[in-house]
Amino acid sequence: MVEGIGASSGIAMGKAFVIPTWEWDFPDKLIDVADLAFEFERLYDGIRTSKDEIVHMKQEFVTVLGEEQTSIFDAHLAILEDPVFMSEVQGIMQRQYKAAEVAVKEAIEKFVNMFDLLDDQYMKERAVDIKDVGNRLLKHLLGALEETLPPKDQPYIVVAKELIPSQMVHLDNNQALGLVTMLGGKTSHVAIMARAMGLPYVLGVEGKLNIAIQNGDFLIIDGDEGRVYVNPSEDLIEQYKIRKSIWQKMREKLQTLADIPTQTKDGVAFQLAANISSVKELDQALRNGAAGVGLFRTEFLYMDRDSLPEEEEQFVVYKQVAEQLEGKHVVIRTLDIGGDKSLDYFALPEEDNPSLGYRAIRITLDRTDLFKTQLRAILRASHYGNIKILYPMISSIEELDKANQILEEAKQELRVERIPFHPKIEVGIMIEVPAAVIIADILATKVDFFSIGTNDLVQYILAVDRMNEQVAHLYDPFHPAVLRMLKRTVEAAKAANLQISVCGEMAGDIRALPIWLGLGISDLSMSVMSILRVKNSLLQSQYSESAAIWEEVQRCTSGKAVVDVLNQYLHQDVLTK
Amino acid sequence: MVEGIGASSGIAMGKAFVIPTWEWDFPDKLIDVADLAFEFERLYDGIRTSKDEIVHMKQEFVTVLGEEQTSIFDAHLAILEDPVFMSEVQGIMQRQYKAAEVAVKEAIEKFVNMFDLLDDQYMKERAVDIKDVGNRLLKHLLGALEETLPPKDQPYIVVAKELIPSQMVHLDNNQALGLVTMLGGKTSHVAIMARAMGLPYVLGVEGKLNIAIQNGDFLIIDGDEGRVYVNPSEDLIEQYKIRKSIWQKMREKLQTLADIPTQTKDGVAFQLAANISSVKELDQALRNGAAGVGLFRTEFLYMDRDSLPEEEEQFVVYKQVAEQLEGKHVVIRTLDIGGDKSLDYFALPEEDNPSLGYRAIRITLDRTDLFKTQLRAILRASHYGNIKILYPMISSIEELDKANQILEEAKQELRVERIPFHPKIEVGIMIEVPAAVIIADILATKVDFFSIGTNDLVQYILAVDRMNEQVAHLYDPFHPAVLRMLKRTVEAAKAANLQISVCGEMAGDIRALPIWLGLGISDLSMSVMSILRVKNSLLQSQYSESAAIWEEVQRCTSGKAVVDVLNQYLHQDVLTK
Repeated sequence: MVEGIGASSGIAMGKAFVIPTWEWDFPDKLIDVADLAFEFERLYDGIRTSKDEIVHMKQEFVTVLGEEQTSIFDAHLAILEDPVFMSEVQGIMQRQYKAAEVAVKEAIEKFVNMFDLLDDQYMKERAVDIKDVGNRLLKHLLGALEETLPPKDQPYIVVAKELIPSQMVHLDNNQALGLVTMLGGKTSHVAIMARAMGLPYVLGVEGKLNIAIQNGDFLIIDGDEGRVYVNPSEDLIEQYKIRKSIWQKMREKLQTLADIPTQTKDGVAFQLAANISSVKELDQALRNGAAGVGLFRTEFLYMDRDSLPEEEEQFVVYKQVAEQLEGKHVVIRTLDIGGDKSLDYFALPEEDNPSLGYRAIRITLDRTDLFKTQLRAILRASHYGNIKILYPMISSIEELDKANQILEEAKQELRVERIPFHPKIEVGIMIEVPAAVIIADILATKVDFFSIGTNDLVQYILAVDRMNEQVAHLYDPFHPAVLRMLKRTVEAAKAANLQISVCGEMAGDIRALPIWLGLGISDLSMSVMSILRVKNSLLQSQYSESAAIWEEVQRCTSGKAVVDVLNQYLHQDVLTK
Repeated sequence: MVEGIGASSGIAMGKAFVIPTWEWDFPDKLIDVADLAFEFERLYDGIRTSKDEIVHMKQEFVTVLGEEQTSIFDAHLAILEDPVFMSEVQGIMQRQYKAAEVAVKEAIEKFVNMFDLLDDQYMKERAVDIKDVGNRLLKHLLGALEETLPPKDQPYIVVAKELIPSQMVHLDNNQALGLVTMLGGKTSHVAIMARAMGLPYVLGVEGKLNIAIQNGDFLIIDGDEGRVYVNPSEDLIEQYKIRKSIWQKMREKLQTLADIPTQTKDGVAFQLAANISSVKELDQALRNGAAGVGLFRTEFLYMDRDSLPEEEEQFVVYKQVAEQLEGKHVVIRTLDIGGDKSLDYFALPEEDNPSLGYRAIRITLDRTDLFKTQLRAILRASHYGNIKILYPMISSIEELDKANQILEEAKQELRVERIPFHPKIEVGIMIEVPAAVIIADILATKVDFFSIGTNDLVQYILAVDRMNEQVAHLYDPFHPAVLRMLKRTVEAAKAANLQISVCGEMAGDIRALPIWLGLGISDLSMSVMSILRVKNSLLQSQYSESAAIWEEVQRCTSGKAVVDVLNQYLHQDVLTK
């Protein structure tokens, strides 16, 4: 049994599919002179296979995209034939006796750094191409391309050192049963997505993983207890089958709540919306009775690809979401990269403190081309449904003014082009930087709604990185300072007659319900899988009781005291009553 | 001429002393088999020289410290004779054809990592020894030990890729004229110290430095304009001599203000204290008429050494500062490492966001041994002067309670040991985490004073890393959110009848004076060199006018608008009137 941290609840049982970790596989010993010829043969083989693949991809795409759009493939082929790049690779092998994959890796690094240094957009794009085609070559040299593919037509539990959000998007919901990783945090985007997809997830099995779990091992993962059992006994499998069936019954019971009105016992109505990262999650959201989509994270549209998505491509996705929601709202957050989210083809500076750095609106206000493209796509889609726009990481009135100005320009362009859009599309901001709370009254004059992003807000208020295990115990959404900041935000919103919702992890925490009732917040947006659990708790709540709890909570001087009060009044899950 | 950023004002002229950067000097090409014998000879030479040095140091210290304290030198000698370590070095050279210095470096890394992994305090300490003695050996192998020593008995301008605070502590104020670095930030600790020491400093000459400046070049550095002139013309030198003499006259004029009462024209008295990092700065602080030491950073006592300072050693320093102040107060801040400050012998985890991570009180509350040692030293020194204790990075009542509890334990121990200390020593907290502002009323019940650390506070309120050049333009101490948070802190302090002071960089910014007057803050602590400049401006201020400015400032909706108002009323420097 391996202990970790439960990051998404539920039980999964099945065979392990271990994703190999690239960085472990580079051979660090030098090659023998005698093996040099063989090593060159491997290099040429890898190049040939990579070229074949690229030609194949080009053929496949040329009918769909037309000749012009496939020129990228020609560029990639050209790199594999480039004498300067190739002589660099060969030189490293010949002079330093390094293995082919090491030489390719070092040559890529050298060229990418060189091109990145040039202050020239064209050359920078070449650097991206080199990296991309170089990685393809590397995968062949490391013989690793096949291994990354999960077994076909049979379910599996993904085991990896670390997962990135783009890998999650590629997981097949019908085959993936659960996740186990060494690294990651409970509030990471991967964890959020796992919960949204209903996949049990155990993380933080640091140092124990690669020894303990082999490809094909039978695993039980217990996402509630944070445990992974490797090749467990029949007895244990039997026990877990029973627990799993209880868990499933609970989910079925919860499912019966999907269509009844969302309100407290004494009739206070709530809107429980879904946070989603891809269109894939929408079906489940609607099945769970989501009132709409309170947060559509658009980063995932930009991930796992070679270049920025075009306006048309974005428009199609936004339109699809809006139409599928049939009049229910969807709040589309503009691109929020930086911090812990990066894009392969969009070079961000290395930062000592990325969470306090160049991210979200700070990037898009510099890259107005990218920003306006996205805003145009959202505006166009707004003609087909109930779409709202949400700016992330706003911390000053200047940023908000500038964002609104670019939105105005986008609208003006569409008017000139006679492309329809909703003329009064609502615009809101994330309240996630402490400054935004403190000047909420000022910001309120220029927007239609606030959406409180508790994850980042708590992190900044407490100066605690939620992903850092050293200080994770200090990350406390129930800290009195957080509650007071929430109250201040609500007061500013109400004074300005603004809609306000909460879309951070805290919205999906049933312990927080008396706080929302006390504050007068009735719009929550949460991971798809939390909706029914929160609804179940809400149906058992009473406004009158909650208001009293909220009074009591406000007198607490520590987060622990707050949680003690809240736990005392907690409305339990369906099956445990 | 090389352009950079002015980080400490003033003009310096003199010869460049370029500090070589270690990481540039490791040879990356492999050695010839034929040279292996020569390479081993170099290794043995280096070991011999290192051993001689250690023996010499031991002899020098044994009379001062006694036999027991010098056992560290024996441990170091033993490592240089350790067969396992040495065979590792030789193995890397023989099998991988790497140069002696590269082999030593890699062997050190391997052993340090290995020892660090062991969960054993004794072995961890051995890792520190290996690193230390290994570095000594490396310096000899790289032939670099001599080069790092500045020219003797002649003034010089330090030029380096980057400087760390411990290097600053070693600079001789009589010989160092100024500083030029590639990396660093205006609010870095090195910049703060440069200003405190009155050394002109230009930083951020990224990429241009190593090409442009050679050892011994004649430089003019202009810390106000952020410019470095390399081997300038006679004309320019003449011009700068004139400018320098004007600048010096201004300083002399300011110096005449040192002993007159510190108050506005209409009689509002201020206390302008000094922030210091070492006893060395105290003379200058007192010459500049400092009302005391509002912030004594103790990190520097822990830096540039092999192990934690003992209680006795700390006590001697604290006592010296207290006695030298002759009754004026000194606020001693407990150890504030982590974030951008690290200790060689104190392994901190690698963090993605160190500013939101494991630092300051978060570390010392885990390492109560270290914390109590420091508190005991401070308590003992409190018998000899007017000492107060300041806890950094407090964000909750639990942390404050725990710190106070350890302080109580330390007091109790001293009582038992019949060692005198000030029984009612005042205890305060830094207000630098947004949460501390928001729950200032709660925290106020358990302390004697607040000290607002604007540098970190601004950083967290705005979610902007002040050291990150990508977002530096967003770091704005005059942002309305910051001003409102200051106001909230002052209100909480006044309601609880608490002393309150400001000790961040903002305290030394003359533009902020109307804000302090408006808020009713009259205790400021700043870099030693800012005191007279702020005093000069204060002497020309009027409370009545400032209160009106503060009213106007509070109506501003952006930091830019605030600065526009403040600039309009700015009381200029002595010479420019």
